[in-house]
Amino acid sequence: MSRLKMGIPKGSLQEATLDLFSRAGWKITLGSRSYVPAIDDPDIECLLVRAQEMARYVESGALDAGITGHDWVVETSAAVDELSELIYAKQRLARVRWVLAVPEDSAIREARHLEGKVIATEVVHITESYLAKHGVKARVEFSWGATEVKVPQLADAIVEVTETGSSLRANRLRIVDTVLESATVFIMNHTAAADSWKREKAENLILMLQGAIAAASKVGLLLNVHRDDLPAVLGVLPALKKPTISALSDPDWVAVNTIIEEAVVRQILPKLKAAKAQGIVEYPLNKIVL
Amino acid sequence: MSRLKMGIPKGSLQEATLDLFSRAGWKITLGSRSYVPAIDDPDIECLLVRAQEMARYVESGALDAGITGHDWVVETSAAVDELSELIYAKQRLARVRWVLAVPEDSAIREARHLEGKVIATEVVHITESYLAKHGVKARVEFSWGATEVKVPQLADAIVEVTETGSSLRANRLRIVDTVLESATVFIMNHTAAADSWKREKAENLILMLQGAIAAASKVGLLLNVHRDDLPAVLGVLPALKKPTISALSDPDWVAVNTIIEEAVVRQILPKLKAAKAQGIVEYPLNKIVL
Amino acid sequence: MSRLKMGIPKGSLQEATLDLFSRAGWKITLGSRSYVPAIDDPDIECLLVRAQEMARYVESGALDAGITGHDWVVETSAAVDELSELIYAKQRLARVRWVLAVPEDSAIREARHLEGKVIATEVVHITESYLAKHGVKARVEFSWGATEVKVPQLADAIVEVTETGSSLRANRLRIVDTVLESATVFIMNHTAAADSWKREKAENLILMLQGAIAAASKVGLLLNVHRDDLPAVLGVLPALKKPTISALSDPDWVAVNTIIEEAVVRQILPKLKAAKAQGIVEYPLNKIVL
Amino acid sequence: MSRLKMGIPKGSLQEATLDLFSRAGWKITLGSRSYVPAIDDPDIECLLVRAQEMARYVESGALDAGITGHDWVVETSAAVDELSELIYAKQRLARVRWVLAVPEDSAIREARHLEGKVIATEVVHITESYLAKHGVKARVEFSWGATEVKVPQLADAIVEVTETGSSLRANRLRIVDTVLESATVFIMNHTAAADSWKREKAENLILMLQGAIAAASKVGLLLNVHRDDLPAVLGVLPALKKPTISALSDPDWVAVNTIIEEAVVRQILPKLKAAKAQGIVEYPLNKIVL
Amino acid sequence: MSRLKMGIPKGSLQEATLDLFSRAGWKITLGSRSYVPAIDDPDIECLLVRAQEMARYVESGALDAGITGHDWVVETSAAVDELSELIYAKQRLARVRWVLAVPEDSAIREARHLEGKVIATEVVHITESYLAKHGVKARVEFSWGATEVKVPQLADAIVEVTETGSSLRANRLRIVDTVLESATVFIMNHTAAADSWKREKAENLILMLQGAIAAASKVGLLLNVHRDDLPAVLGVLPALKKPTISALSDPDWVAVNTIIEEAVVRQILPKLKAAKAQGIVEYPLNKIVL
Amino acid sequence: MSRLKMGIPKGSLQEATLDLFSRAGWKITLGSRSYVPAIDDPDIECLLVRAQEMARYVESGALDAGITGHDWVVETSAAVDELSELIYAKQRLARVRWVLAVPEDSAIREARHLEGKVIATEVVHITESYLAKHGVKARVEFSWGATEVKVPQLADAIVEVTETGSSLRANRLRIVDTVLESATVFIMNHTAAADSWKREKAENLILMLQGAIAAASKVGLLLNVHRDDLPAVLGVLPALKKPTISALSDPDWVAVNTIIEEAVVRQILPKLKAAKAQGIVEYPLNKIVL
Repeated sequence: MSRLKMGIPKGSLQEATLDLFSRAGWKITLGSRSYVPAIDDPDIECLLVRAQEMARYVESGALDAGITGHDWVVETSAAVDELSELIYAKQRLARVRWVLAVPEDSAIREARHLEGKVIATEVVHITESYLAKHGVKARVEFSWGATEVKVPQLADAIVEVTETGSSLRANRLRIVDTVLESATVFIMNHTAAADSWKREKAENLILMLQGAIAAASKVGLLLNVHRDDLPAVLGVLPALKKPTISALSDPDWVAVNTIIEEAVVRQILPKLKAAKAQGIVEYPLNKIVL
Repeated sequence: MSRLKMGIPKGSLQEATLDLFSRAGWKITLGSRSYVPAIDDPDIECLLVRAQEMARYVESGALDAGITGHDWVVETSAAVDELSELIYAKQRLARVRWVLAVPEDSAIREARHLEGKVIATEVVHITESYLAKHGVKARVEFSWGATEVKVPQLADAIVEVTETGSSLRANRLRIVDTVLESATVFIMNHTAAADSWKREKAENLILMLQGAIAAASKVGLLLNVHRDDLPAVLGVLPALKKPTISALSDPDWVAVNTIIEEAVVRQILPKLKAAKAQGIVEYPLNKIVL
Repeated sequence: MSRLKMGIPKGSLQEATLDLFSRAGWKITLGSRSYVPAIDDPDIECLLVRAQEMARYVESGALDAGITGHDWVVETSAAVDELSELIYAKQRLARVRWVLAVPEDSAIREARHLEGKVIATEVVHITESYLAKHGVKARVEFSWGATEVKVPQLADAIVEVTETGSSLRANRLRIVDTVLESATVFIMNHTAAADSWKREKAENLILMLQGAIAAASKVGLLLNVHRDDLPAVLGVLPALKKPTISALSDPDWVAVNTIIEEAVVRQILPKLKAAKAQGIVEYPLNKIVL
Repeated sequence: MSRLKMGIPKGSLQEATLDLFSRAGWKITLGSRSYVPAIDDPDIECLLVRAQEMARYVESGALDAGITGHDWVVETSAAVDELSELIYAKQRLARVRWVLAVPEDSAIREARHLEGKVIATEVVHITESYLAKHGVKARVEFSWGATEVKVPQLADAIVEVTETGSSLRANRLRIVDTVLESATVFIMNHTAAADSWKREKAENLILMLQGAIAAASKVGLLLNVHRDDLPAVLGVLPALKKPTISALSDPDWVAVNTIIEEAVVRQILPKLKAAKAQGIVEYPLNKIVL
Repeated sequence: MSRLKMGIPKGSLQEATLDLFSRAGWKITLGSRSYVPAIDDPDIECLLVRAQEMARYVESGALDAGITGHDWVVETSAAVDELSELIYAKQRLARVRWVLAVPEDSAIREARHLEGKVIATEVVHITESYLAKHGVKARVEFSWGATEVKVPQLADAIVEVTETGSSLRANRLRIVDTVLESATVFIMNHTAAADSWKREKAENLILMLQGAIAAASKVGLLLNVHRDDLPAVLGVLPALKKPTISALSDPDWVAVNTIIEEAVVRQILPKLKAAKAQGIVEYPLNKIVL
Repeated sequence: MSRLKMGIPKGSLQEATLDLFSRAGWKITLGSRSYVPAIDDPDIECLLVRAQEMARYVESGALDAGITGHDWVVETSAAVDELSELIYAKQRLARVRWVLAVPEDSAIREARHLEGKVIATEVVHITESYLAKHGVKARVEFSWGATEVKVPQLADAIVEVTETGSSLRANRLRIVDTVLESATVFIMNHTAAADSWKREKAENLILMLQGAIAAASKVGLLLNVHRDDLPAVLGVLPALKKPTISALSDPDWVAVNTIIEEAVVRQILPKLKAAKAQGIVEYPLNKIVL
């Protein structure tokens, strides 16, 4: 029987990934020591692999597919297909950036000031490409971690990943430039992508993962409105998706059911009330496929 | 740009308040040491302040608005507007009481028995007002905390806050009288309340906080019913809010969607079944604005 | 006033039981030491009792009703009514099995190989019945726990409970036979079952517990579909329960609302999309009474 | 090669036992699941066994020796040798008592009041012996635990173990009588005790365990004293063991080194100072063999 | 029988105090809710009282004696005897300071700059005395805690306690002046101090507490030295206390036993080795009374 | 003023290193985020650096000295002086080994079977040297961690570090060969080693670290013996170090004080007792410099 050999990222993305799979409908269970977690789908076989090594093992065929960062695909120059971006990270549903950062009081203000300097980073190849692009010569040292504390004692600048910049600020670093934007990606090797069963399995998996990601930032909104007030109420709702309007037994009234970004509810809801919507109810969602 | 300077209560109400704001749509993030938490709304600036000091700082204008207990507004005699009660406390969605309590076997049975006694409390002014109202003279000592263990060794009676009375019972204390009922309140100073932008911002905030409080104790109920059984089914539902009745494609049946207190579901649901409702589903809610 | 004296299982089932009651609408609060937990229903009085002793105390009338395992009803031969199975256990919503297990390399391959051997178990009577049924004579020793580590040093075989078999595999044990299947049951003694008030109270309680159990593995699915595509969409949905189809203001479209097993969503959803369903939303449920 | 098969009590005594062995000079390491802990002595093989079952397995020869309570030797009537008492328990270095206890307001004041009553206990045989000795007939029910909460709802009296009585008082129980005093014991079966190698190994083990127990409640005291003051100083020291008096280079002074109970230091030390002892130093001990 | 009623400070000093009593020879056990902890000395009765309220209750005679800070004796102007300083605090064996602190970039550089400003503090009276001494008028506001975050938004300056200054630095505050130095003190009221039994009990207690404090920062040093090298070795040892020199069986050698500050061992030990000391051993101490 | 810039290993050795420094007499305090820990010695400046990068930064002069593993000195080919081995590791006071390991059932039995295989390891250069020495060609892949779970799916063999082999056994791996033995080392660069102040500071530091390491596995033994029994008693003691024999006031008796390995106490102590030693006391030690 065919099975999809799937790499799950071990380490900083691990918890967010297992949580995402769970919301998407797949339960992955870690044993105490095992790096072969159980998954409740006989079609899939999981392996925990570090994000940094994922692309290499997908490329070699040890895995059919995997979840890793776009940054590590670039860093390892692995020849794999990026089937889909999955916009989530350790803390937030968002992209991350690799940035060139220096101490707040450093004289380095742009790339060309790096000439002859020492740069510490976990992404040596990405950094070297960036330097080459700017025609700058500098020494790039591989850093095993805690890179942001290496300046100024051990390096002049660093290239480090950040979601919100707060760790950099806490270490009194200043961002000089963005070196690479990255997001979590679903990758597959060419052989597996050409196998129609594996390809379809992967696409259904992506559909459900995207459905869960979409639902995490959205909510359902249900409200009743008199037909006379309907245009005003609809005018307030974001144009994201046409709301479902259903007839009520009282023919003068309709029920409106719609999906909106949770972040805008606090702006929309007072306006809906002003537009005479009644019985407004916000409810949580598990998955959305529009 | 105008911003609303908002005091968030530090200490016993803090966790419940941050949770309430989160459900209302505002994410407040504490740094490791900082008392200026981040909030994801550029219109608002937060400051963590103890509930006891909140009214004082809102009155002085250091803050525009804040969340504290009605009790502390009274204790500090601060001239602020109480815009809205927000019925939640540390443990429950309910009011709290400041009570006069004594050891189970004390001879003190009513206020006048306090004559010449020592009373320990965190609310010295409230207690003195209570004594004055009853024409009793007693010594009121400020207590820094753990007041309920001061009787009988260090005081004859205490005035202490309680949600459910369980901590008092555990310390074998008897409640003699209620000195003050209190609830969490949203306060604002007169100047801020007269600024139309700040006033509207505060009212929208209150609308969302109330929407989240309302949803926490309620659920949605969805059921199908034959038109012949509709009156019986509607007769079972609480009159709280008119249910939404929608047409189904089978013209003999309708769908009923309503909001009820979660606490009564266990009584209503067997009756709905007896009244021939079908496919009864209870679902959770995030916010309600009726 | 009449009250239902209800035994709640202390120990491995305790947390799952309190959680189930909470979802069903009853909040049970444990004090720090007390074995008489508080419940927010004046009609019920709770007592924490070990599952092993529950049937004995329900039989004697010390309790009217209780929740325990079918296995312990059998083991203690208690004369009680099993009103309803409640399919949940410590880890999963599922039945458990008492199995005869031996070390992986043991020569014991079937029941008759037990002749003259030593068997350790917590269920001495169930094991003796099993041996009698197979006409085998062996020594059955009561085990106070950690039974799976007694072979081979302290016993030749064990009879032990398992949900998934993983603890047995981790101890390198092989299952020889299933001795008894069991599930959590709601039991009542004959006297209480004959009291109409207690009987009705118990049945309403069971209705709500079953409603919460049913909801835990199911979700609501809401989607819009053009009338032309309705047959295709309905063909994809499981036949479990007739979906609710409601009219939308646009007469060419209908909304479909249905309840399905969460475990099949990942198979159904891609098919629904292929069948042209739109705006597909999955939402969580609290309780279901079909 | 000969090895001593040694049972270590699993459960409430486990942590105190592993700690005692460590202080005595043997490091026992538990694996994550294993009940065959590693010990850093090739002459010994350990097995974790519940205290209740220990005597049974030592008697049968599955183990050569073990550590359990005297109570469980009596309860199981196992024919084993109790080589030595080891005075330690879960919380303290002390004996425990099995007591007959009843609710504070019970009418039961002595053993004969138990006639016809229900008694819950983990030690059914010990309790039945006690009743027989007093010529009383009562129903003794095996309790799986949490016995102290069974009165008055599920039993009239209990026989329960206690170190300090505090758990009984917290449950508002009154002690009627002591049924059995017990201490931790080192047991061995007759065959192993007759094997001279195993016997000597066991006795050396006991010597070191006793050395560690003795040291836990004692300290070393070192002081200088002028020869003129020596009789007064020695008069203050407990007569437990003759102190070591050593000559100093200054012939008028001697150094006194002695071992005393830590609990009496606070009484002795002020008296030593009054008797003109100088440079008094208290230091900790690991093991003592007097 | 006479008993010493002793107040133990609840809150930040509590853990350090219980630990100190334990090392001094008294075990104090807290119950789960009780503020009347048990102590293993029938002559003493303990009560947990906040440090801020201790002097007040010792003065009134509700307690005979107590442990609190010198600062709170001053703040409350309580008429009590300070029998002894006990040099320990929450984190270290050291005094603490109440300091006047301002934001790093504040214009306030000395006391007179406070004129007309707002100062937040927990020690209102101490602060007012300080201002009076400097002839400055400013508004002193009582702070319920978290004082260091009140500047600059809610106050211009603070008077706050510090052990090492690290919390102030972390909040970017600058120390302007020391307002009061303080240490933990053992206090007693005049009546109790005049009772010879209570006075002696208190003094013995202080002797042991001081003995434990002294031992915590010191160690024992034991070494052998040839008589020819003795002067050189003794020259290296601190003059704190005359070392004990004892004769060995080999008349050319002596053993030296001494007590030194642990903090200087790292400087002394290399010098002792250079001076030909042999077999140098450092050992821990429990108590020291020189 | 001269200061020694000292690298402390971050990560798996960190806790053991801080503990060792504390026992040696230096307290190192980590701030919440800082990688420049505070040390209570103005002569030293600390920096937390990963063990893997330590030798590189000591070589470059960014640090004067550091603590790392001999393995990482070899792996990075850094030109530094290894001043002293410090025999401690994460779990034990012992050396570690880098071993070539394969799955239990692998066909690889010796180095030459690696021809053409894939080896995963954190020490790429050490592994390549090992292969070169055996004349074998294989692909060595850098592993970011969790190397032991990469076989057999992602690699054919691994080169991994082990203290006791238990993690390898738990992953069902077989050790084929030892590639490198390693211990923790104190390293210094040539420039710093040639600076007499830095060199002496480093040597004193090493003396104290070695003193603390020596004490951790040893204890003091104190006993009294009659002069007639002295030869027998001395015959039992290990010849490690000449015991200190001191005269007692009773001229027939002497006191013996010696230092022995804690691990042999359990063998020596019964023999000492048999040889008529009396008042045998074992006491703990902080540091030893023989």
